Amino acid sequence: MSQWREIEGGVTAPRGYKAAGITAGLKPSGLPDLALIVSDVEAIAAGVFTTSQVRAACVDYCRQRLQAKSSARAILCNAGQANASTGSQGWLDTLESAMLLGQALNIPSESVLIASTGVIGCRIRMDALKAGIPKLVAAASATGSDDAAQAIVTTDLVTKSVALETTMGDRPVRIGGIAKGSGMIHPNMATMLAFVTCDAAVSPSLWQQMLSRAADKSFNQITVDGDTSTNDTLIALANGQSRTPAITEMGAEAEKLEAMLTEVCQRLAKAVARDGEGATCLIEVQVSGATDEESARKVARTIAGSSLVKSAIFGRDPNWGRIAAAAGRAGVPFEQENLQIKLGNFELMQNGEPLPFDRAGASAYLKQTAEDSSLPKEAVATNMSNDFSVVEAGISLPFDRANAPQQRIDNPVIIAVSLGNGSGFGKAWGCDLSYDYVKINAEYTT
Amino acid sequence: MSQWREIEGGVTAPRGYKAAGITAGLKPSGLPDLALIVSDVEAIAAGVFTTSQVRAACVDYCRQRLQAKSSARAILCNAGQANASTGSQGWLDTLESAMLLGQALNIPSESVLIASTGVIGCRIRMDALKAGIPKLVAAASATGSDDAAQAIVTTDLVTKSVALETTMGDRPVRIGGIAKGSGMIHPNMATMLAFVTCDAAVSPSLWQQMLSRAADKSFNQITVDGDTSTNDTLIALANGQSRTPAITEMGAEAEKLEAMLTEVCQRLAKAVARDGEGATCLIEVQVSGATDEESARKVARTIAGSSLVKSAIFGRDPNWGRIAAAAGRAGVPFEQENLQIKLGNFELMQNGEPLPFDRAGASAYLKQTAEDSSLPKEAVATNMSNDFSVVEAGISLPFDRANAPQQRIDNPVIIAVSLGNGSGFGKAWGCDLSYDYVKINAEYTT
Repeated sequence: MSQWREIEGGVTAPRGYKAAGITAGLKPSGLPDLALIVSDVEAIAAGVFTTSQVRAACVDYCRQRLQAKSSARAILCNAGQANASTGSQGWLDTLESAMLLGQALNIPSESVLIASTGVIGCRIRMDALKAGIPKLVAAASATGSDDAAQAIVTTDLVTKSVALETTMGDRPVRIGGIAKGSGMIHPNMATMLAFVTCDAAVSPSLWQQMLSRAADKSFNQITVDGDTSTNDTLIALANGQSRTPAITEMGAEAEKLEAMLTEVCQRLAKAVARDGEGATCLIEVQVSGATDEESARKVARTIAGSSLVKSAIFGRDPNWGRIAAAAGRAGVPFEQENLQIKLGNFELMQNGEPLPFDRAGASAYLKQTAEDSSLPKEAVATNMSNDFSVVEAGISLPFDRANAPQQRIDNPVIIAVSLGNGSGFGKAWGCDLSYDYVKINAEYTT
Repeated sequence: MSQWREIEGGVTAPRGYKAAGITAGLKPSGLPDLALIVSDVEAIAAGVFTTSQVRAACVDYCRQRLQAKSSARAILCNAGQANASTGSQGWLDTLESAMLLGQALNIPSESVLIASTGVIGCRIRMDALKAGIPKLVAAASATGSDDAAQAIVTTDLVTKSVALETTMGDRPVRIGGIAKGSGMIHPNMATMLAFVTCDAAVSPSLWQQMLSRAADKSFNQITVDGDTSTNDTLIALANGQSRTPAITEMGAEAEKLEAMLTEVCQRLAKAVARDGEGATCLIEVQVSGATDEESARKVARTIAGSSLVKSAIFGRDPNWGRIAAAAGRAGVPFEQENLQIKLGNFELMQNGEPLPFDRAGASAYLKQTAEDSSLPKEAVATNMSNDFSVVEAGISLPFDRANAPQQRIDNPVIIAVSLGNGSGFGKAWGCDLSYDYVKINAEYTT
């Protein structure tokens, strides 16, 4: 089954990529805030962006760039200011950012893609960005992925990074990725960013199709609170430096590549969900028996996003009625007489009717699963203290995020639902709803 | 403007109706749990029901009844067990309930409509119901609306009741209503029920159309946590006892009646939203400038349902960025350059860009509005203590719900959004997201 193996190196694991992350002075906290990913050669580029009508300038910019040509050399990401709802000046700032990086790298500005995250309605601190770009370019290295992963986060508890390797012919092909998540601690922060690199050679249209399908099975299947951001961006580069034959149509090699791309996106997406604000555990919802995959995914997403289900999991309550109710309102037709629900190994509902089950055992399963994947307390404390206001209050951050342990995403709480006899199967991921979610999002001293 | 005046009497305010509410022993708490509304004559009946695929037996039953004939004499409502996910036995229990009430009232069981609320997966306690029905029928009176309003609630803080009167020709026409809300304190409880009575004479198809449109502008525009119930039911009776001419098509009289019906539904809906779990205030979102009404309502609903917006209001934080982001993801196209946002009298955003505003003043507006509509502390304390587990723990309820003051719904927090130059306007109502929401929904000792 395992068509790939996990390797080190994040976005610089594939051949022909360098990355960097520095402190340019964009964030008030003094933490790293400017990231670069650069390919040695022009790479095929695909993107998936927020569907919101209120979009940051960088999202419109990337869309236009990728429509004009489906390749790029570099991705520049600034953290601190979202550059959304900033009008025409925000648009000019994005253009200037691309121009400045293009000049520093000696490449056309048309080959630069831009992503921003931070406070909505705030312009990028252009002086700091301008001064930072030469340092950023100088810092770029083939081992720079972790620095870049550090510099794109805002108030995430941990960085998110993955790299996988497979073989095509005799040669290794690698895909790496970094992401930032839904640590929306500062009011107005609500961005999901993910950058994926690959060294395979693949045609532009096929790469975009693969990425869109992978996004539908990963980032589009996670939910923390249902609030889509103005800045959501997923960009994937494929630079051909693996020296494997070009993949130009679907077939065995293409399927292998797409499967690995999907796995990279799913691991990053799960890490983002696990790091949701105030979350104590990762929830995986598996829906089977639907008429098609899309229906299955829709029901899975609805269950993963239900405030009542999320609250119940936080309360370690095997509350199947809420799962049934969420499935029922997903907008997907099914016969309730066929409904089955499992929580871990506990069968809770069959043929649309409740089953007797070991309630204490099911509750213990929820407790144990959450404990197994918990972060150290100081990490949670840091997450609770607004990155921005902590710094404004003159207090330094107590938590060393760079050396934090990675959260475990391999042991989620599993909710399995069957709707009937169809072949449609889909998964979604979310996290529980805790007091801390409300605390994080309500606390703001005006 | 005011085409009607508020009167006393709830569902028994219109002529020709009686109501009752008694304690039949369905709820473990010993609080009233069986309600009846009965018309002196067969009344035109219209209904709007949950769109969930997982539906209580009573919902399917009412749908079938109203398809077969669009009239009814009586509504029986039991609180304590939802009779959802109870399979074929649940269906038989609903049929038997209708038969028993029909016999007691000496009317055909086909003229009885049934509603249930309570725990999903639990059958109605039929012995208690059977013994209760003769007492219920005996208790029915022309002043029984408050008793019925008491008996349909589960864990609501207050009862919801309204009655309005207008004049057609020289004669008074009245509409009354009672509702129960989203006090989903006990895990699995998630029902919205509303019963409306009217003494006008109106044709069945017109009455159903009026009710559907009124529901779209009221109950379908409120959200507490986005979790649609298995039992949601809105039934409206019109018995013609006002002795006014029959209304059979749209025109001045029909519009007048529909406006009053809509107002009754909106007042009940707002009361349900205000009484949302853990809520400290009612939020009204007004969206204008959309291309059509449906688009405006959709954007309003999305903003009212945003966890980030709700958390910000709980934090008394005039956080316009979250309002803009929620508007953007509603699935309704608009130009972000046209976006305007107001909070109370504070203009926060214009032409898609932030405005300088009095942040402390806007925060004070949120604080004051919430304080103005707050309930006494003991009411909140009761809401926090699970009705069921309190009783199981042998503690009696400290809060006299019957004599509780009504919550104010006339002074909501107002969020006004304009999307452009269209004529589409719509409103939605919600409540803030507090620690108590999570506490209420997570606390459950297994």
